[in-house]
Amino acid sequence: KELSLAPSDEIFDRAKMEDLIKRRFFYDQSFAIYGGITGQFDFGPMGCALKSNMIQLWRKYFILQENMLEVDCSILTPEPVLKASGHVERFADLMTKDVKSGECFRLDHLIKAHLEKIKSEKNTKAELKSEIEDILVKLDGMNADEMSALMERFNMKSPITGNDLTPPIEFNLMFNTQIGPSGLVKGFLRPETAQGIFVNFKRLLEFNQGRLPFAAAQIGNSFRNEISPRSGLLRVREFTMCEIEHFCDSKDHPKFDSVKDTKMLLYSADNQEQGRPAEIMTIGDAVAKHIVNNETLGYFMARIHLYMLAVGIDSKKLRFRQHMGNEMAHYACDCWDAECLTSYGWVECVGCADRSAYDLTQHTKATGIRLAAEKKLPAPKQVKVVEAVSNKAAIGKEFKKDAKIINDTLATLEPAALEELENKLATQGHYDLVTPNGSFKLTPNLVSVKKSEKTVHVEEIIPSVIEPSFGIGRILYSILEHNFKMRDGDEQRTYFSLPPAVAPMKCAVLPLSGNVEFQPFVKELSKELILVDVSHKVDDSSGSIGRRYARTDELGVPYAITVDFDTTKQPHSVTLRERDSMGQVRLPLEDVSAIVRDLANARITWSDVENKYPKFEQQENTKGAAA
Amino acid sequence: KELSLAPSDEIFDRAKMEDLIKRRFFYDQSFAIYGGITGQFDFGPMGCALKSNMIQLWRKYFILQENMLEVDCSILTPEPVLKASGHVERFADLMTKDVKSGECFRLDHLIKAHLEKIKSEKNTKAELKSEIEDILVKLDGMNADEMSALMERFNMKSPITGNDLTPPIEFNLMFNTQIGPSGLVKGFLRPETAQGIFVNFKRLLEFNQGRLPFAAAQIGNSFRNEISPRSGLLRVREFTMCEIEHFCDSKDHPKFDSVKDTKMLLYSADNQEQGRPAEIMTIGDAVAKHIVNNETLGYFMARIHLYMLAVGIDSKKLRFRQHMGNEMAHYACDCWDAECLTSYGWVECVGCADRSAYDLTQHTKATGIRLAAEKKLPAPKQVKVVEAVSNKAAIGKEFKKDAKIINDTLATLEPAALEELENKLATQGHYDLVTPNGSFKLTPNLVSVKKSEKTVHVEEIIPSVIEPSFGIGRILYSILEHNFKMRDGDEQRTYFSLPPAVAPMKCAVLPLSGNVEFQPFVKELSKELILVDVSHKVDDSSGSIGRRYARTDELGVPYAITVDFDTTKQPHSVTLRERDSMGQVRLPLEDVSAIVRDLANARITWSDVENKYPKFEQQENTKGAAA
Repeated sequence: KELSLAPSDEIFDRAKMEDLIKRRFFYDQSFAIYGGITGQFDFGPMGCALKSNMIQLWRKYFILQENMLEVDCSILTPEPVLKASGHVERFADLMTKDVKSGECFRLDHLIKAHLEKIKSEKNTKAELKSEIEDILVKLDGMNADEMSALMERFNMKSPITGNDLTPPIEFNLMFNTQIGPSGLVKGFLRPETAQGIFVNFKRLLEFNQGRLPFAAAQIGNSFRNEISPRSGLLRVREFTMCEIEHFCDSKDHPKFDSVKDTKMLLYSADNQEQGRPAEIMTIGDAVAKHIVNNETLGYFMARIHLYMLAVGIDSKKLRFRQHMGNEMAHYACDCWDAECLTSYGWVECVGCADRSAYDLTQHTKATGIRLAAEKKLPAPKQVKVVEAVSNKAAIGKEFKKDAKIINDTLATLEPAALEELENKLATQGHYDLVTPNGSFKLTPNLVSVKKSEKTVHVEEIIPSVIEPSFGIGRILYSILEHNFKMRDGDEQRTYFSLPPAVAPMKCAVLPLSGNVEFQPFVKELSKELILVDVSHKVDDSSGSIGRRYARTDELGVPYAITVDFDTTKQPHSVTLRERDSMGQVRLPLEDVSAIVRDLANARITWSDVENKYPKFEQQENTKGAAA
Repeated sequence: KELSLAPSDEIFDRAKMEDLIKRRFFYDQSFAIYGGITGQFDFGPMGCALKSNMIQLWRKYFILQENMLEVDCSILTPEPVLKASGHVERFADLMTKDVKSGECFRLDHLIKAHLEKIKSEKNTKAELKSEIEDILVKLDGMNADEMSALMERFNMKSPITGNDLTPPIEFNLMFNTQIGPSGLVKGFLRPETAQGIFVNFKRLLEFNQGRLPFAAAQIGNSFRNEISPRSGLLRVREFTMCEIEHFCDSKDHPKFDSVKDTKMLLYSADNQEQGRPAEIMTIGDAVAKHIVNNETLGYFMARIHLYMLAVGIDSKKLRFRQHMGNEMAHYACDCWDAECLTSYGWVECVGCADRSAYDLTQHTKATGIRLAAEKKLPAPKQVKVVEAVSNKAAIGKEFKKDAKIINDTLATLEPAALEELENKLATQGHYDLVTPNGSFKLTPNLVSVKKSEKTVHVEEIIPSVIEPSFGIGRILYSILEHNFKMRDGDEQRTYFSLPPAVAPMKCAVLPLSGNVEFQPFVKELSKELILVDVSHKVDDSSGSIGRRYARTDELGVPYAITVDFDTTKQPHSVTLRERDSMGQVRLPLEDVSAIVRDLANARITWSDVENKYPKFEQQENTKGAAA
């Protein structure tokens, strides 16, 4: 059921792809000459260019086309911010330790591996097998006690030493450090970029001239101290995210119509619970049928879908899966993940969560600063106003530096608290006000409660937040898997069929041989390509032209220009080759830079080029060329 | 002398600029609603776009045009890497603490402030004043003892409490944390991006098919736990760097001719020591006269110069200052800083250091893995070879898991060590081999020394490294200062005359009023601008057109399109306004998106536009418009 609707006709050789990734330095383990650190990766020239092109396209798709406000906030975050957001208390995974060696295991991974082993054993009864299947489905939502019970029931030991294991331990996934020389200011590396946007909400709203809706976006690194990183780029300790926080009062979306016919593979919570497969439907239907909660969520899901296709994700290996109640993050009230099918199974690559007003409310509580917008009412209305009136002079005199926080807190009291304040002042002669700086005793000479009628023209709104959150490394890995290809009949000749928009380099320039006559043409071509902003690589190393084509194919370079003896003759001409079809045309030297630029920017297609210029018939010998 | 050759005719009002920066959210203190953290800043939409445009231009100038290998490496760095690079031991500043309150002060700043105060006092004798001037020049290069002596001599106390101060304390500027759940793997946030490149040297060299020279580059964040951050963006704890490591064997540069006539303001160590001012000269002359050590260093200095002008640095406020011997970083053997003149004085924005073979040598020593390149000799030569021949089977049997490091270490022994090995084996019957895993006793049955003659075709080279290192935040701040302007006769109307290439947004679209007839035109224009990748902002808020021009000027937006009543008539037309000159032309609606795109990409100039289209004569009323 997990794999239904997924293509099954392909053989994928992960070891072969990983060899290529490492050999051509797309990425590799960080600090490898020092033995490496698990869960950290360095992107080499090709991986870095691919990543940077993905991000540029993201910027265009979202920030430019949706007029978002991009921000760039601090990574080091002081503790109070992450206390308010709930991360200090709740951003943890369960782990267990080998009682003797101290080795740590992520508990759900350990249980999963243990149960899958039992399930795969020959003499396990069918009944137990089906029970285990059921447990595995529910594992993600289990708490410490439930997992502890499983450990006992199945008598789990360390898979490495066979030693006993400790009961479940909560391990907070944030890296901590101290800010400043005193060692007293505790800080964390941010676990997501979102909080930087929330704490700047007021300034962003002001920048948007006080209007809702608007979206802010951030591209940057986040950090999670994973207990046992694994699966290459899929579970790492340091990663680049692109996050959007869309602040809105209504969840209708003005541009929803423009995407409503987008067909997507949706896997609703309901279907998951009922054991039904995912379904293909248009996002318009999904919103109309209330499978997707609202237009804004639906709009972003469709835009995510389109972006994923543009960067090279295979539409047959992309689905949106709704979170079930027990797996929702602490801040979310609805969530759909864009998942890509890889050799590791379905991998969450983009989360699209409705965080409602959770974060803004939390930061308002923690700081006493109201993070809210004002909305003009259709008509002014009369409202009853209850407010605390403080005697500022007296409070200032009595509480000195705490006076401000007391006044701020008084100004944010809710109606129920105001009622209590009025009662306590009247009956007990004082009221204990709780503020972020502690509790203060207020007496009737310091504060009173005033009731009045007021004409209001605006209402205050704490906006809802829809959050699309992209894990760039995971998308990048999925792109590589989805575009890893072998030439027909030659398993050794592998390549990446990356879309030109994200390909690390757009073009290779290859002199047919080391003949000095070719050099001025190669140099001139390189200059021209730079002038039109086309990234390229000159490969003038020895090796047959077929072998060098194979090398550029491995790097995912979509186009190659070859300089040969005919190039040196009047009228100067070159061959241009396309990677996927291996088709070649012959065209004038003076045309080629502009043609490659237009191909790379998707202004023209390869068939346009084939229609315009004569085919170059000399076939390349693919067999064994990559040897 | 510091300010010689700098323009003196301008009045710059820093408070006014900072107000604009904050009000329009270019950037502001991070976590301000929580009281803020010194030395950390969040970039708002305008600052973030400016920064991102600077980085895109940097990528084009350096990575694309110089064919560099861009990488993206981990921020979290394990301790052994930074031990080898020298940062664990030496990347520290001196501080002193208030013995009672514990408050920390950066020692050189404290001494400087104390001495400047004495110098400025009326009754300080001329002799002491000139002595203090001399001390201030040398302060940067002083060690702990020298500073301690100054503290005693001038009886320095805490400037805040008047309490006694501790003797100088070395404070390491790296943030530390633990990697993984055990808490046992010590790591740091990288203090520079350079080390990520050095540890990947082998893979990068391989990617470049074994050839020198080549350059690798990295754009990313680094972290320094400054003792007392100050001066806004100029001294912060978290910052974006763009770093280049150019690996070479010869320091000649093939493209030096293309920059040799670039005129630059150079302030050599010699001129600084002799009290002479900086001089304007071409980089060609500077290299010819050995003021700048070599062509490669000179080439990069010129390229840095050109980049700085392209992003909007005022050429009159840009100089290159050579480091004097006592202020060189621990890894550098020559260094020129590109400095920008700001209201804080001359600020180091780009360092251009010759790190020689320091880093590669250090990491080779620490890991036993040779970070070196091979160079083909002009002719094969006969060489005497002395090498350790290990009995691998016997070593494997005796030392098990340490066998590899022993063999690796034996393979990297220098001639002197080999001689010692041979002697000790012969005379004492054993040799103690020091490896990164400890010391091991080797006996003649395990290892011998072989001498032979060999024909070699290549020689091994540890390349030199030239490192241009850009502090993006400092450059950004300097750009803002250099481009902060006031309209003639209206001090309230301030703006940023940012070059279109880096301006946060390229264009504003302004309907003359809230009239509904304008809306479809505004919507259509916005769509067209998106299609041609022009970032823009629709300002349909109320407020006169003059006031809205003033607002876009404040954001540094170079062009504004106004939709008015004539736009709604056939043939549809709009006005286009240029920020700096406030000149306006009238042009067909259908032309305007392409024109703005070409202006933003510097394919055409404003005078081209003025020549092509009729002037729009209606003058804007600048006076008081920004009120």
